Amino acid sequence: MDGEISKQRSEGKISSQPLNPQNTRNLIDSVDAFLFDCDGVIWKGDSLIDGVPETLEKLRSMGKKLVFVTNNSRKSRKQYAKKFNSLGISVSEDEIFSSSYAAAMYLKVNDFPKEKKVYVIGEEGISEELALAGFTSLGGTEDGKKTIDLRPNFLVEHDKSVGAVVVGLDQYINYYKLQYGTLCIRENPGCLFIATNRDAVGHMTNLQEWPGAGCMVAAICGSTQKEPIVVGKPSTFLMEFLLQKFNIPTSRMCMVGDRLDTDILFGQNAGCRTLLVLSGVTSFSSLRDPSNNIQPEYYTSTVSDIIRT
Amino acid sequence: MDGEISKQRSEGKISSQPLNPQNTRNLIDSVDAFLFDCDGVIWKGDSLIDGVPETLEKLRSMGKKLVFVTNNSRKSRKQYAKKFNSLGISVSEDEIFSSSYAAAMYLKVNDFPKEKKVYVIGEEGISEELALAGFTSLGGTEDGKKTIDLRPNFLVEHDKSVGAVVVGLDQYINYYKLQYGTLCIRENPGCLFIATNRDAVGHMTNLQEWPGAGCMVAAICGSTQKEPIVVGKPSTFLMEFLLQKFNIPTSRMCMVGDRLDTDILFGQNAGCRTLLVLSGVTSFSSLRDPSNNIQPEYYTSTVSDIIRT
Repeated sequence: MDGEISKQRSEGKISSQPLNPQNTRNLIDSVDAFLFDCDGVIWKGDSLIDGVPETLEKLRSMGKKLVFVTNNSRKSRKQYAKKFNSLGISVSEDEIFSSSYAAAMYLKVNDFPKEKKVYVIGEEGISEELALAGFTSLGGTEDGKKTIDLRPNFLVEHDKSVGAVVVGLDQYINYYKLQYGTLCIRENPGCLFIATNRDAVGHMTNLQEWPGAGCMVAAICGSTQKEPIVVGKPSTFLMEFLLQKFNIPTSRMCMVGDRLDTDILFGQNAGCRTLLVLSGVTSFSSLRDPSNNIQPEYYTSTVSDIIRT
Repeated sequence: MDGEISKQRSEGKISSQPLNPQNTRNLIDSVDAFLFDCDGVIWKGDSLIDGVPETLEKLRSMGKKLVFVTNNSRKSRKQYAKKFNSLGISVSEDEIFSSSYAAAMYLKVNDFPKEKKVYVIGEEGISEELALAGFTSLGGTEDGKKTIDLRPNFLVEHDKSVGAVVVGLDQYINYYKLQYGTLCIRENPGCLFIATNRDAVGHMTNLQEWPGAGCMVAAICGSTQKEPIVVGKPSTFLMEFLLQKFNIPTSRMCMVGDRLDTDILFGQNAGCRTLLVLSGVTSFSSLRDPSNNIQPEYYTSTVSDIIRT
């Protein structure tokens, strides 16, 4: 894709086009790997979106590599592979790049000392990926039922050896965790503040959107007055791992997602082709809203349109 | 105070001066009302700061009006008056201007319809002030023990007649409340998002700083992608009520507080004299830090220095 056009599109100066038989064939021919977001693209909560299994199967039969890049930090890659398989889709763990994995990899590539600990505001996925990478974590689901009572002489004592706080989506968020994470970041010298992602909301159940990791991350920004290192989309931190694995130039990858400010921006930041699907959080009217300055190359209703040509 | 000097000071171009016998006498002579912040100025948690009762008594004996302007939304004015009296300081309800009261007054002066409801993320103080002003509220402490479980087909049903969400400090913050408040703001047309204040942390107990309302407010900003109307300091919304009550020009008021970005900024925004006390969250080094661009007119250790001349 021409660099100038890509730049203009990423600045919202060129509108995106609907998929049609012609441009779909061109797209498929010029791409070796499809990167899929999951929530709103593959499934909503625990319900598969229509046509997904056939689409993935067809793309695999064409020799395309498939990768699943999800900001949802609630599960580990292992748990995601299980979910895919339980929905009848065969996906292996190493085709999955979740923000929980990204958090652990960020610490690993930055030589985070093994004797330091990581405090987790988030769910199982993060603690599991940290453990797999050899790190010791505190908090997470363990602190989900802790309560505090703001009475005189009460305080939370925090572990001075915590060197990083990882914040992701946490349905068991509470004041104890907020205080613990805040103390580590404010008082432990050099303590890292890592956000799995900053999604405002997501289809955590099939019936409703729920506050996303962006809610918990913002809370910690509010109490610490610090900004996090974001490892999930739209940060391209994970792209290095994808490149190592597949050895395909990003210009021959297509990012397929339902969010402009994470998926499409991630694709554009990484130099990928981009396709927005309208089966998730973004509506056609918000894509076309004058205030939106992120334009994907293409848009369509659902992923199954890719093979309907 | 000369307008240009005030402007330069508020832009951090002129450093603040320590209180000394000479400038303290001048300050007292030129001021008719002292506005005090509470946490970190009058008390820390439930412990009075040394010398406070004598200071207030002396200022009253000099004919000065005393007002207490607190961002802490956990209590109503009535509950604050009780706290003052239990600490041996006689203060009446109508000398207290809390951010819980500010939230209720904001709805009142903006003719918020009585048939609409208010959802509260916060503690008793807010619900009590809303009730006193004749509004119906939901949430608050009532929703403190509600849990949710992100299983398929689960959703939170929210009241479509909620026309405002008030967010303050909430030690019982949970995912249910975050979802409820987010749904009201995102889905109820015209629903207001009101923040009592945005303090990052505060001395909620005497031994430790804890995440302040700024933490909960940021969480809702994160999930709604909206910015709140702030009614507490540094917003000067409450100043209208003070002016009505005392009929003293703001140039003859002195705001005494421990926070640069709320108390001192509030004083400067309103055209008051300003005095920073170092008995709370601001240290001398953070006052003098080159990154700080809020300079009070004066600073001193504690409020009792005002009468030590």
